Amino acid sequence: MKASRFHIATLKEAPSDAEIVSHRLMTRAGMIRKLAGGIYNYMPMGLRVIRKIEAIVREEMNRAGAIELLMPVVQPAELWMESGRWDKYGPELLRVKDRHGRDFIVQPTSEEVITDIARQELRSYKQLPKNLYHIQTKFRDERRPRFGIMRGREFTMKDAYSFDRDRESALASYKIMYDAYVAIFERMGLSFRAVAADTGAIGGSASHEFQVIADTGEDAIAWCPDSDFAANVELAEALPLIASRAPAAEPLKKTATPNREKCEAVAELLGLPLARTVKSIVLAVDRREPVKDGSEDFAVPGRVVGTDIWLLLIRGDHELNEVKAGKVPGLEGFRFASEAEIVEHFGSPPGYLGPIGTAKPVKVVADRTVANMSDFVCGANEEGFHYTGVNWGRDLPEPVVADIRNVQAGDPSPDGKGALAIQRGIEVGHVFYLGTKYSEAMNATFIDEDGKSKPFEMGCYGIGVTRLVGAAIEQNHDERGIVWPRAIAPFEVAICPLGYRKSEKVRETADALYAGLLAAGVDAILDDRDERPGAMFADWELVGVPLRVTIGERSLNEGKVELLARRGMQTSAVSVGDAVPAVRQALAG
Amino acid sequence: MKASRFHIATLKEAPSDAEIVSHRLMTRAGMIRKLAGGIYNYMPMGLRVIRKIEAIVREEMNRAGAIELLMPVVQPAELWMESGRWDKYGPELLRVKDRHGRDFIVQPTSEEVITDIARQELRSYKQLPKNLYHIQTKFRDERRPRFGIMRGREFTMKDAYSFDRDRESALASYKIMYDAYVAIFERMGLSFRAVAADTGAIGGSASHEFQVIADTGEDAIAWCPDSDFAANVELAEALPLIASRAPAAEPLKKTATPNREKCEAVAELLGLPLARTVKSIVLAVDRREPVKDGSEDFAVPGRVVGTDIWLLLIRGDHELNEVKAGKVPGLEGFRFASEAEIVEHFGSPPGYLGPIGTAKPVKVVADRTVANMSDFVCGANEEGFHYTGVNWGRDLPEPVVADIRNVQAGDPSPDGKGALAIQRGIEVGHVFYLGTKYSEAMNATFIDEDGKSKPFEMGCYGIGVTRLVGAAIEQNHDERGIVWPRAIAPFEVAICPLGYRKSEKVRETADALYAGLLAAGVDAILDDRDERPGAMFADWELVGVPLRVTIGERSLNEGKVELLARRGMQTSAVSVGDAVPAVRQALAG
Repeated sequence: MKASRFHIATLKEAPSDAEIVSHRLMTRAGMIRKLAGGIYNYMPMGLRVIRKIEAIVREEMNRAGAIELLMPVVQPAELWMESGRWDKYGPELLRVKDRHGRDFIVQPTSEEVITDIARQELRSYKQLPKNLYHIQTKFRDERRPRFGIMRGREFTMKDAYSFDRDRESALASYKIMYDAYVAIFERMGLSFRAVAADTGAIGGSASHEFQVIADTGEDAIAWCPDSDFAANVELAEALPLIASRAPAAEPLKKTATPNREKCEAVAELLGLPLARTVKSIVLAVDRREPVKDGSEDFAVPGRVVGTDIWLLLIRGDHELNEVKAGKVPGLEGFRFASEAEIVEHFGSPPGYLGPIGTAKPVKVVADRTVANMSDFVCGANEEGFHYTGVNWGRDLPEPVVADIRNVQAGDPSPDGKGALAIQRGIEVGHVFYLGTKYSEAMNATFIDEDGKSKPFEMGCYGIGVTRLVGAAIEQNHDERGIVWPRAIAPFEVAICPLGYRKSEKVRETADALYAGLLAAGVDAILDDRDERPGAMFADWELVGVPLRVTIGERSLNEGKVELLARRGMQTSAVSVGDAVPAVRQALAG
Repeated sequence: MKASRFHIATLKEAPSDAEIVSHRLMTRAGMIRKLAGGIYNYMPMGLRVIRKIEAIVREEMNRAGAIELLMPVVQPAELWMESGRWDKYGPELLRVKDRHGRDFIVQPTSEEVITDIARQELRSYKQLPKNLYHIQTKFRDERRPRFGIMRGREFTMKDAYSFDRDRESALASYKIMYDAYVAIFERMGLSFRAVAADTGAIGGSASHEFQVIADTGEDAIAWCPDSDFAANVELAEALPLIASRAPAAEPLKKTATPNREKCEAVAELLGLPLARTVKSIVLAVDRREPVKDGSEDFAVPGRVVGTDIWLLLIRGDHELNEVKAGKVPGLEGFRFASEAEIVEHFGSPPGYLGPIGTAKPVKVVADRTVANMSDFVCGANEEGFHYTGVNWGRDLPEPVVADIRNVQAGDPSPDGKGALAIQRGIEVGHVFYLGTKYSEAMNATFIDEDGKSKPFEMGCYGIGVTRLVGAAIEQNHDERGIVWPRAIAPFEVAICPLGYRKSEKVRETADALYAGLLAAGVDAILDDRDERPGAMFADWELVGVPLRVTIGERSLNEGKVELLARRGMQTSAVSVGDAVPAVRQALAG
C-alpha cells in the first residue's frame, strides 16, 4: 500500500468522551470514528486490523472442523418467542417492526436461528457432531455504551454453535473449541488467560472466559503461577487461611472503641493486626407469596410477606464475594439490609455489629477463614464498643460456614499447588456448554442410533472481533501510541523516505525496498506523502506499526537504511542490500 | 475440503414459493435456507460463492485505488433527515427506535454516512480524489420480496463513493469505476453488458447499469452487435423508421370497422400491413394549485384545478415508452385517462380514437415514425369506424413530434452503426455520477486550491453481491442444476471416489489426488461420504461444480480416472499420474 492511495488520518487530540487508552488511541490513530453512541465507523486503518483478526479466527475455526455460514442480522421475533428470550432479554434487544407490522430483532447472538437451522438440517446422529459458525454484525442496545468499541452497541462477533449426540461428545466439542481459542489468541500474539467463569444468564454448566491481560481490564482473574489454575475472581474458591482453630486463650471482653467503625481503625486502636478482626455484613432476603403462574420464568414476583436478616462474617482484611454469597442456601436473591432493619435486629447502628447479643435472632454465616479464627475482635452491638477475645463455641454458637469472600493475591491456590496471583483482564472470548437449554425449548431433535428422538446437546462459542482490537491496544501501548503484535498490525512495516519527492536516490531506494518487501510477502506501506520527518514518524509511532524503515540521503551515502522496532524503540542500521532479509528477520524475532 | 467435514444438504424438491430457477436451484443445492420473507440464511455451500465474489470485488476495487472501510448497519436518523431521505425514502426504509426512543435506520445504502465522514475527514483538495467503499449487510423492506435472494430484504452490497474537486475529475473517477466493474464481471466469467440507464430516484446525470444477460431478467436491454451501443430499453433512443414523409397518395376516407378495436384487427380487415396503422393512447395531466410550501421536495400537492388531455400516436406495431412520454414537456406526472374523460373529449369509446375531429381540443404528440407516415389508418372518433388515407398537413395539423416508443429488435442503432438487438438482463451493478446532490444537502465541502470552500462532486457505485449469485445461476444452469463459472464456483473440483470406505486402492488414489490438487492451489472437495454413485453424481451436478473426477476400481485397473466437465457434460479418461495437470488444464480451458 502507498500512503498516497490510503487514508491516514491521525489526530493530535483524543475525543473528550474517550475514557480509556484504547478508545483514545484508536481515535487518534484514525482507526475509528464515532457515528452515534456506541456505533462506530471502522476507518481504513482500523478495518485492516479487523480483517486480520477475522482471518486468523476463520482459519483456526476451519482447522478445528467448524463450518462457516452466515445468518441474517435482522431475525424474526417468532424464534425468539420460542426460546423465551423475546421476553427475557430486556431492553438490550433491539426490536423493530417491518412495514407490515411484524416483529423482528437485530441480532445480539444467533442461538435461535442456528437451533432452527439444526432442527431442519440435522436429522440423524450420523450428521453429528457439527459445529457451525459465522462472523457477523451484532447489536446490543447497551444502556450506557462506553470504552469505544470495547463496549459498543454495534460490533462484530464470531459465534459458533456445536451440536452433539450426548453430553460426552458435547464436552469433546467444547474441548476442541477451547483448544482452537488458545491457538487463535496465541497467533494474535496476545498475553491471555483462559479462566473458569460463572455462566451468567446464558446458562449451561461448563464455561471458560478468554481474558486478554491488561491493567485496565474490567475483570479480575485469580491464577496460580505454579499450576494451570485460573478462574474469574467471582468464581475462584477461597480456602481457609487458618488450617485449624486454635484453642481460646483470651477472655471475652467488651472494649470501648469510640468512633471506630472500620476494622482498620479498631485494629489500630487495639494494637492488633487487621487479620484478628472480623467484619459484619448484614443482608436481607424477602420472603414472598408463592408464585401463582405455573411458569417460573415469566412470573411476576409475589407480595413480600416477611424478611430474613442474615449476618455474614468475613475477616477484616477480606472482601465479600456477592456471587458466592448468593449461592448460600437461603441467600438467593439477597439484598443489603437497610439501616432501619439493622438497628431493629442488632440494637446498634452499623460499625459496631457482631454475632453476640443481637436484638433479634439473625442467621449467621462465617467465611471459612473466620470459622477457624479464635480470640478475634468483632462489634458488640452497642455504639462505640467491640468485643475482643471472641471464640466460637464458647461465646457464641458454631456458625454456618461457607466460602463467601474474594480470593486475594497470595492466597493458596484451590488446587493445592502454590499461591494465587491476581491480574486484571478483558474478556474477548467465551466458550459455553449449553446442554439442551435451546434444543428443548425449540424442540430441536435428531434420531439417535437407537431410533429415538433426542434433543441436541449444544455448545456456543463467541469471540468479540472488534472488542479484540481494543483489548490488544489496552495490553500493547506506550506513551507514543499503539504497539501492535505483528499478526494483527494494520501494516507490518512502514517505509519512511526522507524527501521522497526531492531526492531521486531516496525515492528509488524506497520504491525498490517497497517492491522487494511486497514480493517477500511483507505487508508494507510506503509513506510517499512527503510529510515532515517528525510528523511522519509520529504518525507511525501512534499507529503502532511494528517496524519502521527510514531512508535518508545521509545514511544512503554510507549504503545504509535505518530500522526501528516499535516495541522498545531500538534502532539499527542495515545495508541497503540486506534490508529485505533484515526486515523479515526483525519481524520474525 | 472433505465432504464429511462440510455440510452438503441437497434437496429433491424446490420450495413451493420459488418462482425462478435460481431460487429453486439455490435451495435445492443447499446454498440458502429461508428464515423469513426475503431473509435468508446463507448456508456453507452458498457462503463459499459469496466469499469468492467478495474477494474478486475487493481485489479489483483496491486495484482501482478505492479504499475499504466499514460503516455501520444501524445508522442514526439525523443524517437521513439532513439529506432529506428520512422523509422521501418511504416504507422500504426500515426504521427503529433505540431504548432511549431515538430514531435509527437499518441501512439500505450509505450516502449519508459517507458524506458525513467526508465532511469531517476530507478538508483539502490535496486529499482528493478519494474513493471509499465497504461490503456490508443492507436492508430494504420490499413490499413483496421475491425471486429468492434476487429481490430479498436483507442482502450484501458493495457500495463505493467517490469524492472529487470538480465535475471533470468526478467523471474520471466514474470512468475508473466503470472499468473496474468491467474487470470484475469479466473475472467472474459472466456474460454481461454495461448499459446507459435512467438515473431513477437517486439522481445525478450519468449512469450505467451492469446487466448480467439472462432470458429471465427483469430488464430489457437494447444493444448494437456492430458497435458498443447499449442502453436500457427505457432509455434507448428510437429513430424514425421512415426517413422522410412520402407525399399523400390516397384520399381521406371513413371506413366501417365494426368490432375492430385493435390495430391488428383493423389491418386484417382492410388487408393492410400493421405498419400502416396508428395507435391512439390517451393520457391526462392534472393541473394543480401552486404549492404554498417553499420546499419542493416535501410539499403536499395542491388541489386539482383542471385536467389536460393528450393524445399520443405511435405506429400499430410499436409500444409506448412511459419513461420517454414523461419527459415530453407538459407530460410530466401524466396518468392514463379514464374512460369517461376519453368519451368526453373524443365523443367515442376507446378502440376508435384518432386525432381528427375530436369532441374537445386535445394536445397531439406523434412518435417520430408516425410523424413521417402518410396514407395511414387511425380511429375516426366514432364507434365502429376508422379513417384510411390520413395525411399530416392535409387532413390534420402537423403534430408535436417526440421519441415516445420502445425500440424493437431490428431498429436502427442510434449511433448509426447497425441494427439493434434486444436482450433481457439482471441488474447486478450500477455506477452513478451524483454531482453535488448529497454534498450540498449536507454541507460537505472542502477548501479548493483557490482557498474557496466547495461542495464535493460525488459518485456512487454499487454491486449486489448476493444478487450476483442468483444472476450467475439464471445465466448458467441446465436441466441437471447449476453450471458455475470457475471463478465463483463453491468448489472447482469434486473428487468422487466409488467405494471410498470399501476399496483401499480407490481411497488411496482419491486421497493422493486430493492432496495433489490442494498443493496445486485447486479448490477441491473430496466426497468421502460413501454415498451411492448416482446420489453423489446428482449432488455435484445440482451444485454445479465445474469439474468432477471419478475414481473407480474398474478404471483404476487401467490406470485411469475419469474427468467430467459440468458444462456440456463431456467426459474424458486421464491416467492417474496426469490427473493433477489434466485437472488444471481442464479448469483453465
